Amino acid sequence: MALSWENLSKLESYKKLQSLKGAVSVAAELSKDTASERVKKYSAAMGAGLTYNYAAKQVDEKVLAVLKELSSEAQLTQKYAELYNGGVVNTGEKRMVLHHLCRSQLGNDVTADGKNKRDFYINEQKRIAEFAEKVHSGKIANAKGEKFTTVVQIGIGGSDLGPRAMYLALENWAKANSTFKMEAKFISNVDPDDATAVLKSTDLSHALFILVSKSGTTLETLTNESFVKDALKKAGLDPSKHMIAVTSETSPLAHNPDYLEAFYMDDYIGGRYSSTSGVGGAVLSLAFGAKVFDDFLKGAAEEDKLATNEDILKNPALLDALIGVYERNVQGYPATAVLPYSQALSRFPAHLQQLDMESNGKSVNRFGEKIDYVTGPVIFGEPGTNGQHSFYQLLHQGTDIVPLQFIAFKENQTENDVTIEGSTSQKKLGANVTAQIMAFACGKSDSDPNKTFAGERPSSLIYGKKLTPQTLGALLAHYENKVMFQGFIWNINSFDQEGVQLGKKLAKTVLSGEAKGALKAYTELLDL
Amino acid sequence: MALSWENLSKLESYKKLQSLKGAVSVAAELSKDTASERVKKYSAAMGAGLTYNYAAKQVDEKVLAVLKELSSEAQLTQKYAELYNGGVVNTGEKRMVLHHLCRSQLGNDVTADGKNKRDFYINEQKRIAEFAEKVHSGKIANAKGEKFTTVVQIGIGGSDLGPRAMYLALENWAKANSTFKMEAKFISNVDPDDATAVLKSTDLSHALFILVSKSGTTLETLTNESFVKDALKKAGLDPSKHMIAVTSETSPLAHNPDYLEAFYMDDYIGGRYSSTSGVGGAVLSLAFGAKVFDDFLKGAAEEDKLATNEDILKNPALLDALIGVYERNVQGYPATAVLPYSQALSRFPAHLQQLDMESNGKSVNRFGEKIDYVTGPVIFGEPGTNGQHSFYQLLHQGTDIVPLQFIAFKENQTENDVTIEGSTSQKKLGANVTAQIMAFACGKSDSDPNKTFAGERPSSLIYGKKLTPQTLGALLAHYENKVMFQGFIWNINSFDQEGVQLGKKLAKTVLSGEAKGALKAYTELLDL
Repeated sequence: MALSWENLSKLESYKKLQSLKGAVSVAAELSKDTASERVKKYSAAMGAGLTYNYAAKQVDEKVLAVLKELSSEAQLTQKYAELYNGGVVNTGEKRMVLHHLCRSQLGNDVTADGKNKRDFYINEQKRIAEFAEKVHSGKIANAKGEKFTTVVQIGIGGSDLGPRAMYLALENWAKANSTFKMEAKFISNVDPDDATAVLKSTDLSHALFILVSKSGTTLETLTNESFVKDALKKAGLDPSKHMIAVTSETSPLAHNPDYLEAFYMDDYIGGRYSSTSGVGGAVLSLAFGAKVFDDFLKGAAEEDKLATNEDILKNPALLDALIGVYERNVQGYPATAVLPYSQALSRFPAHLQQLDMESNGKSVNRFGEKIDYVTGPVIFGEPGTNGQHSFYQLLHQGTDIVPLQFIAFKENQTENDVTIEGSTSQKKLGANVTAQIMAFACGKSDSDPNKTFAGERPSSLIYGKKLTPQTLGALLAHYENKVMFQGFIWNINSFDQEGVQLGKKLAKTVLSGEAKGALKAYTELLDL
Repeated sequence: MALSWENLSKLESYKKLQSLKGAVSVAAELSKDTASERVKKYSAAMGAGLTYNYAAKQVDEKVLAVLKELSSEAQLTQKYAELYNGGVVNTGEKRMVLHHLCRSQLGNDVTADGKNKRDFYINEQKRIAEFAEKVHSGKIANAKGEKFTTVVQIGIGGSDLGPRAMYLALENWAKANSTFKMEAKFISNVDPDDATAVLKSTDLSHALFILVSKSGTTLETLTNESFVKDALKKAGLDPSKHMIAVTSETSPLAHNPDYLEAFYMDDYIGGRYSSTSGVGGAVLSLAFGAKVFDDFLKGAAEEDKLATNEDILKNPALLDALIGVYERNVQGYPATAVLPYSQALSRFPAHLQQLDMESNGKSVNRFGEKIDYVTGPVIFGEPGTNGQHSFYQLLHQGTDIVPLQFIAFKENQTENDVTIEGSTSQKKLGANVTAQIMAFACGKSDSDPNKTFAGERPSSLIYGKKLTPQTLGALLAHYENKVMFQGFIWNINSFDQEGVQLGKKLAKTVLSGEAKGALKAYTELLDL
C-alpha cells in the first residue's frame, strides 16, 4: 500500500475525534461499580514484562474506536515499517532513521555507505564489548599498568542526557547485582565550572574519558576536551592514552592517533535517539559490563517489536501516542508531566524532555509546509514522592489540566528496605502512586472550595516488577516509539532540529566580534 | 489606606491590560535603530549588584503604564507591607508569613508565641553559627573525638529542594574561596534506594545528619530517619550523637534527647520559603561556615528592601510579576522556562518549580471563592548551554510560545578556564545567552519554512558579576517576592498547599488496607 503523508487536519478520523472533546469523565468511569474491571482491562503489555495502564485516561470504547480509525487512516504502523525498512523518513536532512537497528532487525536489510547497517551496529557493539572487557581485566590500563576505575563521558544534548539518565537508572541495580565495574561521570556544559568540578573530584590517573560527538565539531564538547587534555597534561599524563572517541567515521576524531580507540556511529541515528548506539554503549558497557548493555538492548528490541502491532490495544507506544494527541489537539492541554516513582529515574524526565520536545516541537510538516494545529507539548517531571511535596499542588488544584505519566515498580533495586508503621518504604512508594492516580482522576468535593479537588486530571501508569537493564530498555524504546508515532500523526519530521541553528550562528557572530544593534548591546551588558 | 482584596477580573486596569493583547512586537522593538537604547533602558537594579533586564519582553511604555496602574489599583506594595508587618496573609491557615524577617526587619515589630519574631530568628541563626563553629573546630565531634566531615540533610519538598539548590549553587564558589567546610548530601525520597545509595557512599562515622521537618510528622522524612538510624546502629554508632533536628518548638523532635541539638522554625515560614530559615541555615552554615550563610541573607535582604518600592520600574520583583501576569492572563502563555547559564544553578529551576507552582497553582481566591482566570503557569528549566542541545527546539519552533527567564554571570565561580579558538568557555557561555535572547526575540525569515524562526518569544535576563552568596540570596528573594506579588495580583493565597492533602489521605487508606473499588484495583496492579 502506498503511503499517504497527510496533515492531521485533513483526516476524517481527526474530525470525528474533535467531536469527542470532553466525551469521557474519568472521575465517573473510576467511580462506577465496574471500575475495577476498567483498571484491569485498560492495560497493554509492553516489552520486558512492563505494562501500560490507561484506565485513568479520558478514553472509553468510543474514543478508542476513533483512535483506531486515526491510526489506520494515518497509516501509523506502515510508516513505522517504512522507517525500519530504511525509508528516508528524516525528510529535512534526507536521511534514513535507523536507531531501531541497534536493537534488532524488524524488516529488510538496510544498506548505506556500502555496508549492511545492522552488521555495522553489531560490529561496533562487539568492539565496545571487547574493549570494555580489556579495560575491566586490566589489559588496557594506564601508563603504570594500573586499572582504570572511572569513566568520564564528554558530550552534550543527546550525547549526555540519555546516557546519563540510563547510567543513573542502573547504578544501584548494578551495585546490588555485582555487575558494577566503573563509576561514570559526565561533563556537558560549556560553563567552565562544570568540567572543573568534575575533574577536581576525579582521580585522573585512573580515569578514562569518552569524547562523544557525531560530527566531531560540537563546540561545547571540543572545548571540554581541551579542558580535560590540559588537566591530564598538567597531571603528567598522556591524553591519548586516557581518551577514546565515539564519533562518525567521517569526523576528524575518527582514525586519529589522539585517541586510544574510537567507536563509530552514523548520520542515521540522531543524538536524542542514540542511547542504544555507541553513544550509550561505550559508557554503559564500561560502567556495568557489556552484558548489561546487551540486556538493555533486548528490552528495547521487545518494545520495538510490539510497536509493529496494527492493533492499537496491543501496541502501547502507539496507544500512548494516540491518547497524547487526543489530549493535546482535542482536549487542548499544553504540557505533560512524567513522574517516575523511582529515584533511579531522577534524570529520565530530563531525557524525555529532550527526546519529545526536540523531536516534535515543530511548526512545519515533513514537507516544510506550515501546519494549522499544535504539535509537541512541554514535557517536565521529577521523581515521586519528591514531586508530591513540590509542584503537585498546581497539578491538583491549578487552573490548567496537565496530563500525567506515572512510572512505578513493585520492587526496589537495592533490596535494602525498612519497615515503619507496618509498611516498607517501597510499599509506601507504591501506595502513593496509586493514591495520586485516584486523587487526580476523581478529586474530592468539600464544602470548603479551598479543599475541593476538581479531579478529571488524566494519567497513565507504566509499571513492572523492577527497574532492570531489560525494563529500562523497554521503557526507553516505548517513549522513542511514542514520539515517533506522534510525529507521524502530526505529519512532521521528528528527526531533525533546525530550531537549534539560529542561536549557534548568532553565538558565533558574538564571538567573532561582529555583533551589531541590540545583540551588541546585550553583549555589552555581559562585558563580552 | 485600607486594603482591598479584589479578584483580578474586577480591576479596571486589568480590563485595560486585556485590550493590549499582542500590542508589542519584540522583534520590531529589537530591530529598530534605537534598539541598543532599549536594551540599556529596560533594566532595573536588583540586590547585590544584579540587574533585571526586560528589553526582550513584550512591553513598551504603554504596557508599562497599565502595569503601573495595575500595581497601584491592586495595592501590591501595600499588601507586601501588610505581610511584613505581620498581617495574617496566609488566610487559609490563618497565619502570618514571616520569611522576610529571617533576612531583615522592614516594618513593625512582629510578635507571636510570646516572642519578638525577628529576635527569635536571629537567635536561631546565632545558635546555628555557634554550633557550626564547634563542629568545624572539632569541639563537637564523633565518639572518637574525630571531626565530622559530611553533613546529610534528611527532608523533602521545601526541606530539600531549596537547601539542595543553594548548596549546589555555592559548592564550587566555596571551594575556590576557601570557605568549604563539609560536603553536604541529601536524602529526600521515600524510595528506599535513595537513602540506601546516599548511606552507602557516606563515611557514617564522620557524618552528621540533619533531620528537617517542621511538624515532625512528615512520613517520608521520619521513614528516612529510621533508615539512617538503622544504618548508624549497624555501624556501631549512637544515632543521638550523629543527628540534629530542625523543627518547630511544638514538634516531637523538639527538646528530645534523641538529637544532639535542635534548631527551631515556626509555622510562619512555609517549606518552600524556608531556605533562609534554619532549614537552609543549618546545612549551609555547616557546609560553608556561618559567614557565607549570613552573606546569603544579606543579599536576600537587599532584594526584600527593593521590593518595597512603589515605582514598578525600580522594583524588579514586582515588575517581573506584572509582566508574568500579562504573559499568562493576557497573552495566554501556559508555561515559563527558567534557564540559568550557570551549571551551579542546575537545581535552581527545580526549586523555583516548587516555589512557584506550589504557591500559585490555585483555583480559589484568598477567601476560598472560585476564580475565573488562570493562575500560576507550569515552570521548568535546565541550565544553558545544555538546554540548547535539548528542548530549545520546541522553544524556538514549537507551536506554543513559552516565555523565558535567562540568568547569566560575567565571571565563573572557580576562576579556572581555557581559551579555545580565541575565547574562554565563560565568554562562550555569555555569547550563547545573548545569542539566544536575540534568536528568540527576532527570529529569522528563510525561503525554507523549516529554517524559519518566527521569533516573538519574550525573555528576560537577570545578570551580574558572579554567583556568590550575596547574589544567590538576591536571586532567591527576587523569585520569592515575584511569586508573592503574583499571588496578590491573582488575589490568591500563595502560602498554603491544600492540594497536597488528598493524595496523602488516600495513600494512608492504601497502607491501612482499606482501599476499595478502583483504588484497590490499582493497588493490586502493584501487588500492594
